[in-house]
Amino acid sequence: MWYYLALAAGVLSVLYGWLQINSIMKAPSGDARMREIAQAIQEGANAYLGRQYRTIAIVGVVVVVLLAIAFRNWHAPLGFIIGAVLSGAAGFIGMKVSVQANVRTTEAAKSGLNAGLKMAFKSGAITGMLVVGLALLGIVIYYGLLTKVVGLDLAVEGEKRQIIDSLVALGFGASLISIFARLGGGIFTKGADVGGDMVGKVEAGIPEDDPRNAATIADNVGDNVGDCAGMAADLFETYAVTLVATMVLGAIYFAGSSYITEIMLLPLAIAAVCILTSIVGTFFVNLGAGKTDVMGALYKGLIVTGVLSIGGLALAIATVMPAGFGVMDGAAAELGLTGEITGLDLFLCGVAGLVVTGLIVVITAYYTETKYRPVRSIAQASESGHGTNVIQGLAVSLESTALPALVIIAGIILTYNLAGLFGIAIATTTMLALAGIIVALDAFGPVTDNAGGIAEMAELPSEVRDTTDALDAVGNTTKAVTKGYAIGSAGLGALVLFAAYSEDLKYFSALAVEGDFFYNVSVNFSIANPYVVVGLLFGGLLPFLFGGMSMMAVGRAAQAVVEEVRRQFREMPGIMKGEVKPDYGRAVDLLTKAAIKEMIVPSLLPVLSPIVLFGVIFVIAGKGAALAAVGAMLLGVIVTGLFVAISMTSGGGAWDNAKKYIEDGHHGGKGSEAHKAAVTGDTVGDPYKDTAGPAVNPMIKITNIVALLLLAVLAGL
Amino acid sequence: MWYYLALAAGVLSVLYGWLQINSIMKAPSGDARMREIAQAIQEGANAYLGRQYRTIAIVGVVVVVLLAIAFRNWHAPLGFIIGAVLSGAAGFIGMKVSVQANVRTTEAAKSGLNAGLKMAFKSGAITGMLVVGLALLGIVIYYGLLTKVVGLDLAVEGEKRQIIDSLVALGFGASLISIFARLGGGIFTKGADVGGDMVGKVEAGIPEDDPRNAATIADNVGDNVGDCAGMAADLFETYAVTLVATMVLGAIYFAGSSYITEIMLLPLAIAAVCILTSIVGTFFVNLGAGKTDVMGALYKGLIVTGVLSIGGLALAIATVMPAGFGVMDGAAAELGLTGEITGLDLFLCGVAGLVVTGLIVVITAYYTETKYRPVRSIAQASESGHGTNVIQGLAVSLESTALPALVIIAGIILTYNLAGLFGIAIATTTMLALAGIIVALDAFGPVTDNAGGIAEMAELPSEVRDTTDALDAVGNTTKAVTKGYAIGSAGLGALVLFAAYSEDLKYFSALAVEGDFFYNVSVNFSIANPYVVVGLLFGGLLPFLFGGMSMMAVGRAAQAVVEEVRRQFREMPGIMKGEVKPDYGRAVDLLTKAAIKEMIVPSLLPVLSPIVLFGVIFVIAGKGAALAAVGAMLLGVIVTGLFVAISMTSGGGAWDNAKKYIEDGHHGGKGSEAHKAAVTGDTVGDPYKDTAGPAVNPMIKITNIVALLLLAVLAGL
Repeated sequence: MWYYLALAAGVLSVLYGWLQINSIMKAPSGDARMREIAQAIQEGANAYLGRQYRTIAIVGVVVVVLLAIAFRNWHAPLGFIIGAVLSGAAGFIGMKVSVQANVRTTEAAKSGLNAGLKMAFKSGAITGMLVVGLALLGIVIYYGLLTKVVGLDLAVEGEKRQIIDSLVALGFGASLISIFARLGGGIFTKGADVGGDMVGKVEAGIPEDDPRNAATIADNVGDNVGDCAGMAADLFETYAVTLVATMVLGAIYFAGSSYITEIMLLPLAIAAVCILTSIVGTFFVNLGAGKTDVMGALYKGLIVTGVLSIGGLALAIATVMPAGFGVMDGAAAELGLTGEITGLDLFLCGVAGLVVTGLIVVITAYYTETKYRPVRSIAQASESGHGTNVIQGLAVSLESTALPALVIIAGIILTYNLAGLFGIAIATTTMLALAGIIVALDAFGPVTDNAGGIAEMAELPSEVRDTTDALDAVGNTTKAVTKGYAIGSAGLGALVLFAAYSEDLKYFSALAVEGDFFYNVSVNFSIANPYVVVGLLFGGLLPFLFGGMSMMAVGRAAQAVVEEVRRQFREMPGIMKGEVKPDYGRAVDLLTKAAIKEMIVPSLLPVLSPIVLFGVIFVIAGKGAALAAVGAMLLGVIVTGLFVAISMTSGGGAWDNAKKYIEDGHHGGKGSEAHKAAVTGDTVGDPYKDTAGPAVNPMIKITNIVALLLLAVLAGL
Repeated sequence: MWYYLALAAGVLSVLYGWLQINSIMKAPSGDARMREIAQAIQEGANAYLGRQYRTIAIVGVVVVVLLAIAFRNWHAPLGFIIGAVLSGAAGFIGMKVSVQANVRTTEAAKSGLNAGLKMAFKSGAITGMLVVGLALLGIVIYYGLLTKVVGLDLAVEGEKRQIIDSLVALGFGASLISIFARLGGGIFTKGADVGGDMVGKVEAGIPEDDPRNAATIADNVGDNVGDCAGMAADLFETYAVTLVATMVLGAIYFAGSSYITEIMLLPLAIAAVCILTSIVGTFFVNLGAGKTDVMGALYKGLIVTGVLSIGGLALAIATVMPAGFGVMDGAAAELGLTGEITGLDLFLCGVAGLVVTGLIVVITAYYTETKYRPVRSIAQASESGHGTNVIQGLAVSLESTALPALVIIAGIILTYNLAGLFGIAIATTTMLALAGIIVALDAFGPVTDNAGGIAEMAELPSEVRDTTDALDAVGNTTKAVTKGYAIGSAGLGALVLFAAYSEDLKYFSALAVEGDFFYNVSVNFSIANPYVVVGLLFGGLLPFLFGGMSMMAVGRAAQAVVEEVRRQFREMPGIMKGEVKPDYGRAVDLLTKAAIKEMIVPSLLPVLSPIVLFGVIFVIAGKGAALAAVGAMLLGVIVTGLFVAISMTSGGGAWDNAKKYIEDGHHGGKGSEAHKAAVTGDTVGDPYKDTAGPAVNPMIKITNIVALLLLAVLAGL
């Protein structure tokens, strides 16, 4: 029954999206000037995403062929295609909605804060629900196809393996799209933002989003392709991979158990109920008449979803798991537990996942909202100059990693003690099950950002801009929240991903006969093994190198924008006087090429790293050492990646809001020396929080998935 | 014999220091104005170090009492006192020399680059030789006292344990001084630097080191107490802890072997020969007539030392290890090797240590010298503003971690395959044996920095300042090199430190009888154990939190300086006109108090972390889990610490030299917009490279040593 309920939940969320799209399209889209601007943004975003997807498609085709050769079946390649296509679709549709909602939000903002919020949030909620809906549908349908149509049987070891490999391949498809989309979109959006600000605000002395700046349309396009489509692909991937990893782990640990079918359904059921609670939550996002606490309105939706989800979780576990469930056929011992696992244990693990989500939201809000010490300390430090602003921002960004890490540590300890590694997996699944509402909170940010840009360019009254600015400031916090949440789930799920790797190793070794690759292989995962330390260090360097490469890519893209805008100012003197319209399309086109070119190498880093490390250590020290090093690499990349990602995303959000805090009239307000320093901090924070930081999450996942596929390929040698 | 040779080498290096001090004191110290300024710097440095040492002494007395209670003998407390006092002495004497050499370097710079270089380098070489000489003497004499006077016998298990504990306590003494000195000195020097620049250069528009700025003397004092005394304490600690760890590992792995005495002597012998080669190397630091390649002159000294050390290493191993050495009484198997270890293997490990040192020097130079891409890319990015300067600097800082990490990984793999964990230890020891010449290269930096400040304040002709500036630019690279070297050795030695922990665990467990803490304890160090992951994450967060705390401390100290200088400008209007001398003493005094106050909490973080983590996990999950978590923490702190430290120190050096590159007339030169942006980057890099980054190295060590002592204390329960 729960199989069909999960299917229904997926369909429902897509339906929700469709209905809301219609409702958005019916809203007024402003005057001709506004529509013209929105049109330019739509065209730019379409052109960029089209080109990005075509480039990824080339890589994708190569991967499909490699998978077909390696697995010699159609299950894995098809899984890859499903994951990739749906992930791309979620991002694409999200972007499509976003570029319609932006101008309508500008229009709605004319009649007040609540109207603007509702329009922008509606657009965000569509993206959110599409992300979880399409991901759940993809998994449910493909799992159903394999088990019900093809008839693969979970109870038969070899057939179970095909199911697992196919699901992992689905995750791989989602991950590959996600790393390219996050990085390409991130480079585009921040190249436009940084480059545009640099030449516009700093050199030409014209305000942000001024229509005379040739990079403005590109900046707005960037919000849609980076912060909306890129983010959607990222969360789609996180959601899909977490569900898949939990199912894989269930299939492994409960092998031979009479509960195996139920265990496989459990994550799908949790995801299904949380889609319902998320949809309910979206209706609670509402500002009371005369109220201005936008963050409070968003929290209301989130809290409603969270509380309802506790009940939903209880319901799902109670109905999915059969009565009397509790004695685990030895699975509990396999998970490292002495007692038995009960439904209550699993429920408490799920609640722990919700609590971790809540705490990460609160901590991120503390570090990025204008009303708390961290943001204010950066604003304060701006008074003594650019340097102290950046120093304080970096200090905040480093410090902001500590509490989330402690929360994750507590989550690991608690859930492991309740239900072993499977408990951690259930906690991570429940955490991610809220992705619908979390993405909704995030994806409304780029819409309001665009709405502000359109208001500025269409020269609407300043009250409209003030309204969109108020919404935008909240967007900085919600964006940081989503990223903290995504990377936090990766931290919590670190052991789950590693467990999938080490269990796969055990499985292949047990099965291997003489002549097989895994015959007689013994792997020592002790941290006293030098190859484990080598793997930890090698994995640890990836987020740093990746971060450095993507920051440089943004720098180069921004430089290209600066030169283009300068050229236009120089060759068309009428632009500055407002007599001639700049050539927006050229800036978009140039950035499109730059971003696509720049995204390739860093994206391939996590794909190739496990393979290279394996090869090198295999040649030097043999199979056992190489497998140990690759396993340790999976943890190493999380250990540093968690901190690099959180510090970048929280720090970037804090810098941005410190600027907003000063613009609200503190420390001298707009135009003061403190404000100039804060603009510098904001510029630094841009690639930190929107390019390098968020791309670390898919980078971690892809490293893990490639390692899993590597094992499967080696087993087939 | 080698015991006495090591003793002699220690005496020789102290003697070298004494002779060179006399030679410096005889050099002319300039005119009355110069002497007056130097006098003010001396008084400030004395006052700060005096206060710092008194504060540390309080902590030290508490630790001595705790050690006496825990160990119930005098060996451990005495070891702690020896380590602490000698580390303090090395820093103190180094500072004393440095404040005499600064003004004499200014005077010498009047007659050209080579004269200035020789004077400054002489001062650096004294500090370098004192660091290694005092450390070697401390270890040799205390080891002799225990084995020869007290008569503890390495062949008797219980007595060997007392020797090990006492040596570890010596390392603890050195580490505790080092973390306080690095951090306190770092906060002082960068508080003065950042605060002084902020109010002087940015607000008042007066040049760096202008005598009207009340913070100038404090800035110069900071160079001596931070970059000289703090750095000396740090390298003393690194050197001592590495020698001790190698001896401890030898004592454990070769227990019962007939070679145990020789194995214990081997690190001391390597240290001894490298003192000789370092002294020889110092005589090769010389600029040919008319030459200006200061870095080349320094490299000459380093290369001579390196090449001679290869021969010295061969000699030491060949004469220390008895003929026929090669069959290791089962020790080889214990080390995880199948073959036997020969003298050639150990020799090759030592050479690998030298090669790692060389590669880290080359890589750091690449990332921080003005003639290569990274620094130039930051200078280039400065053209488009403050923001892009910082973005590019951060990108370079992140990227700069990759190659050193790969070198360290290669070093681990190579030396482990040659001679197991003991091979890694020998490589690390040989690497550190060069500390004398490396510190010499570094400690000459603050002297030239001071010399430039004195030239500016005494209003000497600009040629003098140009000469000191040329020396100072090289100082930025050598400072980054030393820090990369110190943290690199920690990375290479990571397994050695962890091995000491895990072997201690084995030892205590084997010995435990019913009722003992370690009775029946089994510890699972597999990365599949959740408590290992918890330890890795907890350890991983320490460098980030520590970095954030120390950056904030610098920010607060700088803020205090800004306010004080502003106050003096306001209350004494004669200062700006040059009629009234500012109250330099007050700024020094204020910073002294601020730095001492700020250093306490971050310094205690690594001391208390292992204890807290042990306690919490012990309560939740018992002994085995707690011991596994603490062990993993030791690796976690290195895995993130390595990258955090390298990125901060290389990035900071690159920012500083990008500014110098622009000042040399590129991208518009001094006073241009690009220069202003580069000043911002330099300011950001200051606490990065001189406070937070370098303090990570002692932080890692102290975490490890506290964990080792914790085991010894638990065993005594």
